[in-house]
Amino acid sequence: MERVYRLVMSCPDRVGIVARVSSFLAQYNGSIMEANHHADLEQGWFFMRNEIKASSLPFGADKLAEVFAPIAEDLNMQWRVTDTGVKPRVVLMASRDNHCLADILNRWHNGDLHCDIPCVISNHDDLRSLVEWHGIPFCHVPVDASDKSVHFAEVERLIEEQHADTIVLARYMQILPKSLCERWPYRIINIHHSFLPSFIGARPYHQAHERGVKLIGATCHYVTADLDAGPIIDQDVIRVSHRDQVEDMVRLGKDCERSVLARGLRWHLEDRVLVHGNKTVVFN
Amino acid sequence: MERVYRLVMSCPDRVGIVARVSSFLAQYNGSIMEANHHADLEQGWFFMRNEIKASSLPFGADKLAEVFAPIAEDLNMQWRVTDTGVKPRVVLMASRDNHCLADILNRWHNGDLHCDIPCVISNHDDLRSLVEWHGIPFCHVPVDASDKSVHFAEVERLIEEQHADTIVLARYMQILPKSLCERWPYRIINIHHSFLPSFIGARPYHQAHERGVKLIGATCHYVTADLDAGPIIDQDVIRVSHRDQVEDMVRLGKDCERSVLARGLRWHLEDRVLVHGNKTVVFN
Amino acid sequence: MERVYRLVMSCPDRVGIVARVSSFLAQYNGSIMEANHHADLEQGWFFMRNEIKASSLPFGADKLAEVFAPIAEDLNMQWRVTDTGVKPRVVLMASRDNHCLADILNRWHNGDLHCDIPCVISNHDDLRSLVEWHGIPFCHVPVDASDKSVHFAEVERLIEEQHADTIVLARYMQILPKSLCERWPYRIINIHHSFLPSFIGARPYHQAHERGVKLIGATCHYVTADLDAGPIIDQDVIRVSHRDQVEDMVRLGKDCERSVLARGLRWHLEDRVLVHGNKTVVFN
Amino acid sequence: MERVYRLVMSCPDRVGIVARVSSFLAQYNGSIMEANHHADLEQGWFFMRNEIKASSLPFGADKLAEVFAPIAEDLNMQWRVTDTGVKPRVVLMASRDNHCLADILNRWHNGDLHCDIPCVISNHDDLRSLVEWHGIPFCHVPVDASDKSVHFAEVERLIEEQHADTIVLARYMQILPKSLCERWPYRIINIHHSFLPSFIGARPYHQAHERGVKLIGATCHYVTADLDAGPIIDQDVIRVSHRDQVEDMVRLGKDCERSVLARGLRWHLEDRVLVHGNKTVVFN
Repeated sequence: MERVYRLVMSCPDRVGIVARVSSFLAQYNGSIMEANHHADLEQGWFFMRNEIKASSLPFGADKLAEVFAPIAEDLNMQWRVTDTGVKPRVVLMASRDNHCLADILNRWHNGDLHCDIPCVISNHDDLRSLVEWHGIPFCHVPVDASDKSVHFAEVERLIEEQHADTIVLARYMQILPKSLCERWPYRIINIHHSFLPSFIGARPYHQAHERGVKLIGATCHYVTADLDAGPIIDQDVIRVSHRDQVEDMVRLGKDCERSVLARGLRWHLEDRVLVHGNKTVVFN
Repeated sequence: MERVYRLVMSCPDRVGIVARVSSFLAQYNGSIMEANHHADLEQGWFFMRNEIKASSLPFGADKLAEVFAPIAEDLNMQWRVTDTGVKPRVVLMASRDNHCLADILNRWHNGDLHCDIPCVISNHDDLRSLVEWHGIPFCHVPVDASDKSVHFAEVERLIEEQHADTIVLARYMQILPKSLCERWPYRIINIHHSFLPSFIGARPYHQAHERGVKLIGATCHYVTADLDAGPIIDQDVIRVSHRDQVEDMVRLGKDCERSVLARGLRWHLEDRVLVHGNKTVVFN
Repeated sequence: MERVYRLVMSCPDRVGIVARVSSFLAQYNGSIMEANHHADLEQGWFFMRNEIKASSLPFGADKLAEVFAPIAEDLNMQWRVTDTGVKPRVVLMASRDNHCLADILNRWHNGDLHCDIPCVISNHDDLRSLVEWHGIPFCHVPVDASDKSVHFAEVERLIEEQHADTIVLARYMQILPKSLCERWPYRIINIHHSFLPSFIGARPYHQAHERGVKLIGATCHYVTADLDAGPIIDQDVIRVSHRDQVEDMVRLGKDCERSVLARGLRWHLEDRVLVHGNKTVVFN
Repeated sequence: MERVYRLVMSCPDRVGIVARVSSFLAQYNGSIMEANHHADLEQGWFFMRNEIKASSLPFGADKLAEVFAPIAEDLNMQWRVTDTGVKPRVVLMASRDNHCLADILNRWHNGDLHCDIPCVISNHDDLRSLVEWHGIPFCHVPVDASDKSVHFAEVERLIEEQHADTIVLARYMQILPKSLCERWPYRIINIHHSFLPSFIGARPYHQAHERGVKLIGATCHYVTADLDAGPIIDQDVIRVSHRDQVEDMVRLGKDCERSVLARGLRWHLEDRVLVHGNKTVVFN
């Protein structure tokens, strides 16, 4: 895979942003592999993502960021430079169900997810063997239902210790405390097993069955302090019928959950997801 | 199209129902063109639909119903016999948007919807020419916002006068009063422009845009007194992105609305939709 | 709708194209409403589309083209400037089936297709009334099966006379002669009723039924002299089952055909489709 | 899971088949959990599948078959009785790619595929560890490219030895010899990585990329001596764009392949797939 630097930014919209940024890149002979723009005319906000061939530039990612900083400041950008030569660190969290976890691990094992997975954290010990087969440390952090604070303190400590860039809740069935949600904004990804905003909260397939819907879905979103209400990254649905009982929906929904989570995570890791307000721009 | 009688029924589940019904039909040499069963094991309820070639029976639909009645009574059935030789009468109701109405009229015109359309009722006069081009009477029944009762009384009178079997709300933007909803249970079909139960009520595309969903949808359902909460017949979705403003969603959603309504109406007219509780069995 | 100019181009890929073009636009204070780039790294070819707010520029579309020409020449571009203030002229061609034609006319009538339709040409007279209801001239040009050249000569004359920018074969069942195909490259759009390259040629639903496929489809493509082999603009599919006979496939396929054709035509009219070799780049 | 017997049959269509079969079942108090019929009116052929609650019958599956045999003979049925108390034996075959194999093993591990997997056969040793982690024997049977007969003889011996009911080619990249194809008709399931009949044979994603299609697909089918031409069980597609190179198609297609194969295999194992001519009836 060709090494690239990604220059990702958003700022108030005005004339000449693309010219400034692309002239800057051209000045250093930067070869653009992929470029995406979006102007939200309603909000007056501009979004941009550039992939630049690393070998075409006369310097590295740090220097790129340094020389770009004045432009970014001038245009009031929120921005970042990432380097595909440095793999992001992704901590996975799961509970007992393995379909999402096994799927992510299989993609990672096959080289389809560009990241390191320093550890998997779970409140149960069931998935240890699966995780360890992949050569990844498994951290069993039990939950005491009468006082969950010990559990969450240890979770926080582990995430810090591992310098996680991204945390994925791969059917981790606990609700994160507000403090953790706010500590890593737009860096915690959850898969919810419904087509949000339908069926927020617990047992969405039971709710779907009760309502008699003809499609069930899954939603991949960033975790915020507001339950199941964070910015949506991706969603998908699958058809069901009167023949499908709750347990069929659970089974059918698994395929939807894992493909939506895998897509959302991949886009996140490729810096394709930009958040503005409570919504996402996804350059896919 | 081969003329068929449809024998449609539901009843408490027990051993031997299929044997009773199919032996009954075999006894009269009835040739079954299509048969569908469903046993809802959770609710202990059984559903069945048979299409019988009319020419294979020694009698007509009325006599078929007469000789079947004792079996139906014995098994506590809700049931009906319909005859494709008698077209159901469908009254359409619309407002100003024509996409659903034009679609239904085009399908009807092309022979893809087996029904008569005795009239179209609208609270505006905009769609008169479209309807009349198809040779169908157009009834303009204005709404007085300060007192809608006159409007609804006239709507009720027209539906009665036309002996409508089915009423289709093809983007008719008024909320029917409870009395009308309850007068024709499971005979009034609505298209709602969201993936219910998300975004109940007014301006669902605005709600969808505000929430930042990645799919928008449409739901075809029977109208009950509880707004947008009746039994769902069919649903579908279409992908949207950050590039789509509300007006794009409105445009894209139209395709979804009209195809979902057309499917739901067709299944209803073919007696494929059986209601039990607040859910449907759809033998499609 | 805000008036915009569209600057659409493709050229050999090299460093600095975006910088050149966007600096050019910024120099005249051009406000970019939407921008899309694509670099085909394999072919070494670059594609770009910009929508510029007309009122932000100090001149009109002609002058924009004039001042941009030296850059285009320098970079060996294939390019064009279009102006949404000037509606493209689209001639529709149909035969007897009305589902695609009625759909396009309905969208046009509702303002969802930004074009003029100077006339509809058909080898049969069946659809005259439908077309004329929309206030569009209907040209019946019969086909003599023993010598089709008279028909095609008249078709060519009409298209020229109407100064058509685009010709849409909306289930026009004749195969265009090579000379016509080559006269308007990438300006004739066809809808083929299969998922190409499956089932090229006649009676694709019969072929699909014979093969027992579980999905049927439709393909919108530019017409070239090679039958059903031109660059594909869009495709879609719909699920079928063992219950569906050929006539069911025909009916179900209609929905697919018309939505795929409508999407493809819209993208074409919005200058979102760029052809390179026998493939398309679609900036949707 | 409730134990059921499945009575699956097809025969020339005539009046009274359902009555005969359902009366037979009612006579022994058989409780029907699910029933499906299909009459192919074109071919004059009738298909039926019944799931009968095992505990409702006074005898076992063998006796059920014995007492049903005279009816079957009388009606010229192709038929079978299966018993969910006896798990079918499925031999998996793979090569180097693990996405389909890992998916099937994960579903089996989670109890979502009701079968035994006596062994996995592969022409490479790469997937040994994955298979053995699941507690399943791995048989490495290398291929000598200059003489493949030794390989296929050993494959045949292993399948026989394991008394396989079903063989799944989970991206096993060898073409089976005619003799093996014909030895186990409609018991060998393959996943082909295209939307058949498009792109038969090798490197379908390369063919798809070359043609510029906008959807890629996968097809699950029974293997016959005619390459990629056996009866289709299921198909699905996924959208691609001009941005997707062959390697992206390969990656995106994997998700399609594994979900289509998993669905097809599940339906096969549940006796939902009936073959007639070169087509399938799928009671899903």
